[in-house]
Formats: sequence, C-alpha cells, structure tokens
Amino acid sequence: MSMRKPKLALIPGDPSGIGPELVAKLLSNPESAEKADILVIGDSHVFELGEEQSGAAFAKVACDPTSDWTRAGPYAWYETDTIDRDDIAVARVRRASGACALNCLSTALDFLKDGIVEGLLFAPFNKEALHLAGLGHNDELHFIADYLGVENYISEVNAMDGIWTSRATSHIALRDVADTVSEDRICEAVLLIHDLLRRSGIKRPRISVAALNPHAGDGGNFGREEIEVIRPAVEKMAARQLAVDGPWPSDTVFLKAKAGEIDAVVTMYHDQGQIALKLMGFDRGVSVLGGLPVPVATPAHGTAFDIAGKGVADVKAMCAAFGTVCEMAGNWRKADGVTTR
Amino acid sequence: MSMRKPKLALIPGDPSGIGPELVAKLLSNPESAEKADILVIGDSHVFELGEEQSGAAFAKVACDPTSDWTRAGPYAWYETDTIDRDDIAVARVRRASGACALNCLSTALDFLKDGIVEGLLFAPFNKEALHLAGLGHNDELHFIADYLGVENYISEVNAMDGIWTSRATSHIALRDVADTVSEDRICEAVLLIHDLLRRSGIKRPRISVAALNPHAGDGGNFGREEIEVIRPAVEKMAARQLAVDGPWPSDTVFLKAKAGEIDAVVTMYHDQGQIALKLMGFDRGVSVLGGLPVPVATPAHGTAFDIAGKGVADVKAMCAAFGTVCEMAGNWRKADGVTTR
Repeated sequence: MSMRKPKLALIPGDPSGIGPELVAKLLSNPESAEKADILVIGDSHVFELGEEQSGAAFAKVACDPTSDWTRAGPYAWYETDTIDRDDIAVARVRRASGACALNCLSTALDFLKDGIVEGLLFAPFNKEALHLAGLGHNDELHFIADYLGVENYISEVNAMDGIWTSRATSHIALRDVADTVSEDRICEAVLLIHDLLRRSGIKRPRISVAALNPHAGDGGNFGREEIEVIRPAVEKMAARQLAVDGPWPSDTVFLKAKAGEIDAVVTMYHDQGQIALKLMGFDRGVSVLGGLPVPVATPAHGTAFDIAGKGVADVKAMCAAFGTVCEMAGNWRKADGVTTR
Repeated sequence: MSMRKPKLALIPGDPSGIGPELVAKLLSNPESAEKADILVIGDSHVFELGEEQSGAAFAKVACDPTSDWTRAGPYAWYETDTIDRDDIAVARVRRASGACALNCLSTALDFLKDGIVEGLLFAPFNKEALHLAGLGHNDELHFIADYLGVENYISEVNAMDGIWTSRATSHIALRDVADTVSEDRICEAVLLIHDLLRRSGIKRPRISVAALNPHAGDGGNFGREEIEVIRPAVEKMAARQLAVDGPWPSDTVFLKAKAGEIDAVVTMYHDQGQIALKLMGFDRGVSVLGGLPVPVATPAHGTAFDIAGKGVADVKAMCAAFGTVCEMAGNWRKADGVTTR
C-alpha cells in the first residue's frame, strides 16, 4: 500500500439487506480508519440501523466533501436523504430500497468524478430492487461504466486470497460459449486483469489462461478451440511481454493458483471460475469492477436476505473488498501510464 | 463394511509408473490385510521393484486361486509371466508395459467372472501404453465392460471424502455438451450413481443434479436446458422415490456436497465436476467404474511418470480406492435386487 492513505467512498448498498450491518462491523474496527480516509455516504438512520443490527458502533462526523473532509474523523460522513426510515423493510425487495441504493451510488460516482474520493467500496445491491427503482442497465457495473463515460471493455473480476479471475464470457448460455469465445475476447480479458493486478501493486502479474474443453481438448480430440483460438491469443499476449501462459486444463489451473504459482486465471466461461473460487473461499470472495478508470469493489456475496437484520452476517468478504480497494487506490496512479493497453 | 472380509484382486497397473510402489506401500500397512482378503496378481519382479522403490515390504504367498486362496496370507499371490524384468523402463511409455498391465487385468477379470474374487483394485494404467499393446477400446472402462459382457450404461464415477460425482457427458468438446445432455442421459447418470452409492452401503443416497448454465439459467435468461431437460429428468427420478433434487447452480452445489448435505452430484460435463473434486482433494480422489456387475476402483491420478521410481508417490488415493472397493464389495450383494434399475 502507498504511504499516503487512500481516500475512499463507502456506501451501504441495499438497506434491506446485510449492507448496513457490514458497514457497522467494518468501521467499528479501528484498523479500518488507519488504512484509509473513508467518506461514508448515506442516510443517518440507515447507518444507525446497521449499528443496531450488529451491536457495533462507529463515530461519523458530518462533513463538507468539497473541503478537506479527511480531517473529519475517524469517519467523515456525507448526509443524504434517500429513504424514510419506515420504508425500510428488512429482508424484502422494495423499490424504495433500490432507489436509496441507486441514489447513494450516484452521489459516490459524482465524488469519484470530481476527485473528492479515489475509490469506492459498496455493500451488496439487490438487482431486483435496483430494477424496480428504474435501473435501465443489466447490472451495477454497466450503470457505473455508463455514468463514468467508459467505452472500453468492462468485466466483473473476482478475487479471493490473492487469486484473481477474469472471464472471456459471462452471463450467457453454455451452448453459446464456444462460439462467443474469440481471440479478441481472450486478449481483452487478459489485459483487463493484467492492468487491475498492476494497479493493485503487482509489478509483473503471472496469468494463466484456462482451456475450454476437457483435458484442454486432448490435442484436438475433444474440440479445437485450444489450438485455433486460445493458444494464438496467449501467444499474442506473450509477444507483448506479459507473463501469460496456457491454455491449461481447467481442473488443474486452479491447483496452480492455489499453490501460489500464478496471480490470476482467465476463464472461458462463468462457472469455470466460480466453481473454483466459491469452493476455495466463498466467505472471502471479492468482486472488482474491471475496466473502470477508478477502483471499485464489493463483497462477492449478495444482500443475504435469509440472514438480514439478525446480526450474524460474516464481515470477512467486506473486509477483503475494503483491503482490495485500499491496495488499488494506493497503487492506481503509480501503475498509470505504464500499462499495456 | 460387512463382517466377512471381502475378497479382492489387486493388480499393479503399468509397471513403468508408480503402480508397483503404491502396491508395496498399501500392502506393507498391516491394516490392509485386516480389511480384505487380497489376491495380488502379477510378476514377482514387478512387486519386488515396488518394494525396492518404496522401501516398503510385504509378504506374499503363492497360491492356487481355484482352492481356498484366502488361507494363504497375509497376501495371496497369483504368479504371472507378463514382462521381462529388463523390459521395464521406469517412467517410459512402452508396449511391453502396456501388455503387462493388460494381461494382469484380463487375469483379474477372469477371476471376477469365476467368482474367485468379488472386486478389483488396480493401480494406474497408462492409456498410451495400453493402446501400443493393442487395446482396441477408448479406455480401460470400455475394455472391462466388453470383457464382462456388459451392455448397459457405463460411466466413470469420481469419489473423494464421501462426495461422489457422475456425469451426463464426459470426453466431448464443450460446444457439443448442450446438445448431448438429454433427459435420458441425466436419468442414466442419476441411476448409475444411486446404485453405486447403495452398493457402497448408503441406504438412501442424497443426489443433487447440477445445472448446465450459469445461475442455473436464471429462469431461462441464459439457456433453457434447466427448464426443458434437467428439471424433467429430476422430476422423473424423484417420482421413482429417489432422494434427488436440482438443478442447482454448479458453483453452489459443491458447497452443499462439501458441507455433507448430499452424497453425490450429477454433473452435466467433465470439468464441472473435475474442477471441484481436484480442488477439494486431488490427493485423495478415487475413480469408480460405474455400470459394471462388480466393484472396480482405482486412484483418480495417473501413472505419474514425473515421479515414478523415486519412492515419493503419495499412497493416499490408492488407500482411498482400496477402502472404496472394500465398502462396495462388502455391501454389493445386500444392495442387489433392491436397486431401482
């Protein structure tokens, strides 16, 4: 991490889920204030709800974000008025909750655009509630990219215990995967994760590309994509001096990652990476929004309505997401201008 | 396990690999003789090679398999003459090694047919060597099924720490998976693993069927196989009073298995199960040959030519495969006649 503390925005996500509780649990740990200057954005009663639910308290001081808000402390707070206390229905999908989450997100993005903060950590959103509240995009990643005027390739990236994964295809039917995987898509997925890893402080990320077919196609016996598509993409990236190799059989590439031999796996389809990551550490998984001009991360889990309001939510993934944003914000500019894209 | 010790055949697999070493390591443990009456089949010098490589010794007594060979002990031995000592090239693919493995296997299968043994444990084969030696089948499973006159559905099944998986498709290109997965194939894969689990002593196996598409198709948004193919298959099996459910997203179904909530996962394609099993315990994985009239198992790993002859091979998977054959042989007949097929 950089010597200077990174300046981060923190928003509570969907107020009906475990987000408020996770915020309280994260910020009640004094180490959080040591790692970053944190600007919490949201309605006071939402944060108080999280404190009640968790039994964990934290001190927030109202601030003017356009001044030097980092002097307010330990946590600077930007008050919003996005939802009435009585409209919060714990563990329920509600338009009002979605609107609250979307408004806080928009405010945080404005602050990112204005340079008031350098990164964003958000507690989980509920996609259904966001759509009820008028979200016109597929998901928050596409909304954020649009809001920030991003036109390049974007993709959710998953990280867990130092193992990162990006994917060449995502939310599509398995029958469409083989025709959607292309040399360009693979190169984009490699470059995206390479840049993110550099920005998180790894100078020369070691990246392995997964095969598409069982036994990596067994020399063409069970599919030719390894020969015709994946290997050429790997060679193109290696020719640009990236530390990339593959294609590796997907049932062994994660053993290499687990053993610490590589930093990242580029997968060909959604479940290829998700089966592995969830097994290795469902409770510590982080989602990083890749392809944005600023670091943004969130826990890999969702709003967990089954346990919302009960005070039993596990804060490990939220802490891991916080640590990841800190690392990225601290290294972002240093890596800038030397990336390969 | 049944009170009576099961009668098992044990063959050393490819003599150029780690098979002889694994046999010596397994049999030098006195507990192995307590769990089963074991008839080792092979050339004396192959077993001696394994003893040299491992530094582990075991006592084998030449016997006549047509007599009560279980009185020879602790290990009964059927001498063969399948390869010259000088023709064994450690860590090399050789026609002679493949012929040795194939001859021992055929002898073991004859003994299974004649009721001299009730189950078979084999150390890893090398497929390339088997093919050089004239194997006309895709793999040993198809050879064994043909040798035993099996005409029903057969499939390799993987087991690890009490988690079993069968699959609806196996060594085919990923692009062909969606069209190959059918209601019948899924039902066959469910019934196959249900029968194997019953034969290994589990009275009412709990089986979950994995989805094909990410997020189980998300209600049809990313593929309709869950709705049109997998769910109907699950309902058909549930209507036969099997404890089967699904389709489950493939990135969460293995968390259920890991938590002990189910006994088996039926996967739609090779890597779906293999990614999970190898991550959970590559060193303890067992392959069971499913659909045969007798229990046959082997370690999930291969001949490991990279470490063959060095004495460092890990015997855990071989021990696990031995335990699995013992369980199956002990329960096979009890479960017979009450299976659902």
